[in-house]
Amino acid sequence: MTSDAPLGEAGLLARMLPHLSASDRLEVGPGDDAAVVRLPSPRMVVTTDSLVEGHDFLPGATTPAWIGRKAAVQNLADVAAMGARPLALVVALSAPADTPADVFEELTIGLAGRAEADGAEVVGGDLGRAEQLTVTVTALGALEEGQAPVLRSGARPGDVLVIGSPRLGRSAAGLALVLAGRIRVSGEEVEGAGPHGDLVIWHDAPEPDLSLGWTLGRGASSMMDLSDGLVRDGTRIARASGVQLDLDRTALGPDVAQLAPLAAELDADPWTWVLHGGEEHAMLATFAPGAVPAGFRRIGRVRPAGGEKDHRVLLDGAEIPGSGFDHFGASV
Amino acid sequence: MTSDAPLGEAGLLARMLPHLSASDRLEVGPGDDAAVVRLPSPRMVVTTDSLVEGHDFLPGATTPAWIGRKAAVQNLADVAAMGARPLALVVALSAPADTPADVFEELTIGLAGRAEADGAEVVGGDLGRAEQLTVTVTALGALEEGQAPVLRSGARPGDVLVIGSPRLGRSAAGLALVLAGRIRVSGEEVEGAGPHGDLVIWHDAPEPDLSLGWTLGRGASSMMDLSDGLVRDGTRIARASGVQLDLDRTALGPDVAQLAPLAAELDADPWTWVLHGGEEHAMLATFAPGAVPAGFRRIGRVRPAGGEKDHRVLLDGAEIPGSGFDHFGASV
Repeated sequence: MTSDAPLGEAGLLARMLPHLSASDRLEVGPGDDAAVVRLPSPRMVVTTDSLVEGHDFLPGATTPAWIGRKAAVQNLADVAAMGARPLALVVALSAPADTPADVFEELTIGLAGRAEADGAEVVGGDLGRAEQLTVTVTALGALEEGQAPVLRSGARPGDVLVIGSPRLGRSAAGLALVLAGRIRVSGEEVEGAGPHGDLVIWHDAPEPDLSLGWTLGRGASSMMDLSDGLVRDGTRIARASGVQLDLDRTALGPDVAQLAPLAAELDADPWTWVLHGGEEHAMLATFAPGAVPAGFRRIGRVRPAGGEKDHRVLLDGAEIPGSGFDHFGASV
Repeated sequence: MTSDAPLGEAGLLARMLPHLSASDRLEVGPGDDAAVVRLPSPRMVVTTDSLVEGHDFLPGATTPAWIGRKAAVQNLADVAAMGARPLALVVALSAPADTPADVFEELTIGLAGRAEADGAEVVGGDLGRAEQLTVTVTALGALEEGQAPVLRSGARPGDVLVIGSPRLGRSAAGLALVLAGRIRVSGEEVEGAGPHGDLVIWHDAPEPDLSLGWTLGRGASSMMDLSDGLVRDGTRIARASGVQLDLDRTALGPDVAQLAPLAAELDADPWTWVLHGGEEHAMLATFAPGAVPAGFRRIGRVRPAGGEKDHRVLLDGAEIPGSGFDHFGASV
């Protein structure tokens, strides 16, 4: 990898476009005013999300490829959480004028690699200027005729609350390492994290199994991706469904135990990471009892709610302090 | 209009969502992980583009509503230029934490208003933090079965070059007024522009007739929207089609004449505005001779090209100095 002088738009595109694949679905790819993609059905699923330097990632604590992977994952996860398979991404990249062409190329490799891993492809994009590197991805999928989207509003009392991930809190723990100022990413190596480098990588570019969303997750009564923490996102399901979610302390115990040594080092509470940590992007879902498929892990249950103030998330029936993440600083 | 304290994400959404319309096409709107939209066909058209504060607009020289309108127009134009009707937009908004809720609300009004005027609707979005206000729109449309997209590559020698706008150079002239530092936008009023306030408004929020793209423009041999200037965008058609475009000085004369008094005031060349001015977003197209529909104005012709170096744009057969706009500073 060599750093090199900035190129014009055409030169940057020449570095980026070779990393994109093109399936039979792609009637018109990059290079015209818009892409033309043939979906398997006219019921289109669409979502958009941005990563901004200094807010969503810190330059010395990640790599362009990981930024690309995360930008892809957080959008692919939203499509998967509807029970739909992602098919196409478009990407708007804004960057300072002196950004090396390598950064654009590696971002593209990260984006395209994760998209392809989930059966999708990058079909178009835009390059522009900004003071901070900004990556906005829009992900597109389709639902077959007759296939109901899996909404946040379908959880029913008696359902089981599950997560499509073997471990929670890793992204938050990785972020704590980054914010503690003791790590530095050089190449693809995390320096200064001791045995915890994998947590930093998971924060920078989480790798949830999204296929759970469009395969077994289609049978869920409700589903969303875990982006802002169990409590905050769980509250969204609780409110949309008019129910209460009760997390199971015993089920989450192993997640907490695995993070406890690092938490002690950083003088942090591992429960905070597990209950409020965001950016996992795993599938958070509810299923009828006895219908929980393989790949999902039971972490609580759905209970009836007396009124709106009961549309919340508890832990073994008790209140949980803290409120997860809000981009604009208000509580949930 | 009152400025007010920042709200959380939920509070901002409460200010924005009431301005969005929801057609029968919208199966799932804002509030879940992704939107579900029913297209008239599975052949989806998609494009994305950003506006960034300090690069694509200056805070004192425009309004949030105009920024929203421009963000919509530049994406709707790309869909229209494929001969497709835009149907849905998603919007990623990033802004400083202290941005007043009014800004989000008025941006939404501008976006949604222009989308609706073209038969589209805002179906989803994302809010995040950045140092600079950044608006990234993705526009979606559909092509009917059997309807060919109108590409940049279909221009043939003998075709007529046309533009779907009665006047060119207005956006560039408006930008020149902004960059001269003599104007200030207050409310919806342009102060300091004398009789030329309409040029500043056209730059801040151009209002091209995009319906030409998905109606009569479907019969064009090639089409794109005019975003980076006649010469630069024309060169894209010339290269994609393997032809030469020859602009007609007489046809462009009235455009130049109307801007000449202001150009004299600013010590600028009105031909530069007309030939290299971008951000008009009108439909630039070629038609077989005798087949130019109403609404399109003849501004040149398509000629055969001897080789790659001939894939360019001339004016009455002569070379044109200058090269239009490149976000990353290299020549076309």
